[in-house]
Amino acid sequence: MANIDYQRIYENKTRKSKLWYSRAMNTFPGGVNHNIRFFEPYPFVTNAAKGKYVFDVDGNKYIDYWMGHWALILGHSPKPVVKHLSEQIKNGILYGTVNDVSIELGEAIQKLMPNAEKIRFSNTGAEATMYAVRLARAKTGRRVIAKVIGGWHGFNTTLMQTVNYPFELQEGPGIVDDESQFVESITFNDLDRSLKVLESVRDDLACIIVEPFLGSAGCITATDSYLEGLQEFANKNGSLFILDEIVTGFRLSIHGATGLYKLKPDLFTIGKIVGGGMPIGAVCGNREIMSLADPVLRREKQSRCAIGGGTFSANPMTMTAGLATLKYLKENNSRIYTKINRLGKNARNGLTKIFSEAKINVQVTGTGSLYLIHFLDGTDINHIGNATDVAMSNKELLRMYHLALVAKHGIFFMPLKMGAFSAAHEEADVERLLSATRSVVDSGILSTQSPITNQSRSS
Amino acid sequence: MANIDYQRIYENKTRKSKLWYSRAMNTFPGGVNHNIRFFEPYPFVTNAAKGKYVFDVDGNKYIDYWMGHWALILGHSPKPVVKHLSEQIKNGILYGTVNDVSIELGEAIQKLMPNAEKIRFSNTGAEATMYAVRLARAKTGRRVIAKVIGGWHGFNTTLMQTVNYPFELQEGPGIVDDESQFVESITFNDLDRSLKVLESVRDDLACIIVEPFLGSAGCITATDSYLEGLQEFANKNGSLFILDEIVTGFRLSIHGATGLYKLKPDLFTIGKIVGGGMPIGAVCGNREIMSLADPVLRREKQSRCAIGGGTFSANPMTMTAGLATLKYLKENNSRIYTKINRLGKNARNGLTKIFSEAKINVQVTGTGSLYLIHFLDGTDINHIGNATDVAMSNKELLRMYHLALVAKHGIFFMPLKMGAFSAAHEEADVERLLSATRSVVDSGILSTQSPITNQSRSS
Repeated sequence: MANIDYQRIYENKTRKSKLWYSRAMNTFPGGVNHNIRFFEPYPFVTNAAKGKYVFDVDGNKYIDYWMGHWALILGHSPKPVVKHLSEQIKNGILYGTVNDVSIELGEAIQKLMPNAEKIRFSNTGAEATMYAVRLARAKTGRRVIAKVIGGWHGFNTTLMQTVNYPFELQEGPGIVDDESQFVESITFNDLDRSLKVLESVRDDLACIIVEPFLGSAGCITATDSYLEGLQEFANKNGSLFILDEIVTGFRLSIHGATGLYKLKPDLFTIGKIVGGGMPIGAVCGNREIMSLADPVLRREKQSRCAIGGGTFSANPMTMTAGLATLKYLKENNSRIYTKINRLGKNARNGLTKIFSEAKINVQVTGTGSLYLIHFLDGTDINHIGNATDVAMSNKELLRMYHLALVAKHGIFFMPLKMGAFSAAHEEADVERLLSATRSVVDSGILSTQSPITNQSRSS
Repeated sequence: MANIDYQRIYENKTRKSKLWYSRAMNTFPGGVNHNIRFFEPYPFVTNAAKGKYVFDVDGNKYIDYWMGHWALILGHSPKPVVKHLSEQIKNGILYGTVNDVSIELGEAIQKLMPNAEKIRFSNTGAEATMYAVRLARAKTGRRVIAKVIGGWHGFNTTLMQTVNYPFELQEGPGIVDDESQFVESITFNDLDRSLKVLESVRDDLACIIVEPFLGSAGCITATDSYLEGLQEFANKNGSLFILDEIVTGFRLSIHGATGLYKLKPDLFTIGKIVGGGMPIGAVCGNREIMSLADPVLRREKQSRCAIGGGTFSANPMTMTAGLATLKYLKENNSRIYTKINRLGKNARNGLTKIFSEAKINVQVTGTGSLYLIHFLDGTDINHIGNATDVAMSNKELLRMYHLALVAKHGIFFMPLKMGAFSAAHEEADVERLLSATRSVVDSGILSTQSPITNQSRSS
């Protein structure tokens, strides 16, 4: 086994990226426009993407498992989206008015997700979750929001709590303590412990907001009883149960996670896939709750819950890309989800087998088309069940593994982040991933007893 | 003078819109995805836009002065944007990684707005202003944000204060009192009064955030001394001075309002025009302050101000549309701004003359390419200088005037909102606007001693 210097390989093939990135450093703090897009030694600079591939300024081609923060379920620039967007561009990019295609997309969502009795489009998931909890406070007249430790609902002030390790500390300067006093955090997949926390704030509990699948915090599947238990508590307590389906909507099934679990959320949020790659977020749910934001029924601001909207909400480009995507998913429902779920399963099984045979202690988590490896060697962790487990896993080995894949094997995961299969991926890509993983394992870099550096995750 | 039933004319020509809108009511609260997009009796439903025109599902064509919430300075689907976007669509819609075109757009902004020593792209203006005040709190370790009464910075929780009349009331249910305790509001263009408020919170004052031109709240120009006075107080007090240039950036001049006034904001926000019609926001400013958000320098979350970002930040579609727009503006700087400012001036002067001759008491406000009529008959208001004056003006007459223009004259203002000229408008459009206005004046509907109904503005 030879210790390959993957970083040197990476640097040798990304010389133009390095120059571009030094320009980026002069323009953006840290050279990035989203913290998680930085990785060591420096991120390559993308200049194109097509199908399953992303390309950098040096002409390197990578099989992409990041897929636009997992938003691109049909791959990059899929034909139906390109076709309809190309027409829409000439027909108007931004109307700023009520428009036909937004109504069509709204109706398409309602058909696929029947709990969306009413919908409000925003431009990002962070806006959608902010509006969801605002609606919950308006509906209940209560103040406390319960969220999961590690749960990621975007950069809005209210939900910017217990996102990154160490979870007990504030999410950095600029978040005022008084703004965070009404957020209580619960432990994913630990129902008893969660219920105790919820009990302690029950009188003032406006809502529980939870991802049905812990995405950004580490690709962890919820147990049925956990989500059902939270929903049951919320229902009995007169609190709203809010599912954040921004990652899982149109990903775990065409009906989202709600379609897989026996859940009926009062409100839920979607984003990513539903915009077909274009900026989107939406809060959806119960007719009566959503009507709290109705500007026609509620002319006085005192009676109306103020949710956006925004200049770009329901813009025809996003609506067109989203509608083309949902139509294509609906017409190819069985084929697409069967395929990407099979690819995900084969990847998880194959990876588990490789590491097991190499006696490297990992847990491969995920469900459907989503998957992530957690390295457990040199840690006290035996099982990945929540965000703390992920934070305690050996992140340095994961970082080295992901860098090795991108450096030598043309396979791109956003380092430390889960991967997603799209309809553009094929069984041969799983084979290539497994073969590359065998090669990285054989290099010996993952067997090193590296010192554990639990860097704080940046979301 | 015959009293024309403009509402009946509108309803007769928008029968298909009425049907579409009834579908929208089943999908979206109030049928809209932004409160201000609803107007009586129902909004027409757009299905296309091109150049200066917006089209509805009944085939009606309107000269558009709403222009996508004033974002479309080159008109709808301008050639340079269509050309570059059409290419980009095939080349990738969303990368989710550092990319070349985002660096190019960032550098283009830095050249035109030298105070943008560093930039962070978000997807909306509401996100950008949220991050700006978070950075101010991080930099100063203080909590209080001063904003202007009526000042509009998007639907984020922190700045959702004193937006709509009556300003002293909370902006609706769902906003928790504790979240608003650190926002102090000041009166636009009243420096003495504003300074008294600022003095009262000086020890805990993190920043003053102000639009250099009061946009959404009523199209009101700031006096030089007002903005300079606020900046001076902030500088002396160790508070940040934040200019919200989301409306004015690349609108009042290619260097924004900062280019017209003698201002040097610590931070400023841009949006709208800089995205070329695609979703965007950005917080820009002083290198040292922006570095508080640097994920490379500040690996520990405790030391890093958490600002987005988001899935769609710096996406290549927005970056491409924005870059094409800035390039075109730069190459045609003198021609475009001279033209749209002249159209604005001619419209303001012409409208003032018509109403003056008709002895209808109005004040036409605005600057450059932006303008709005305020009806003062039947009110106690003599001069429009701040948002309270606007709230006290005769909104019902303004609503009727705007409806008459859309119903009979094919001219669209978002009712109650200011209008914007774009490079796609011509002198003939001013003539048409003036001639239509004369016709509406002659109809007599604006001379009626209507009861004043000061409806709360919905932003």
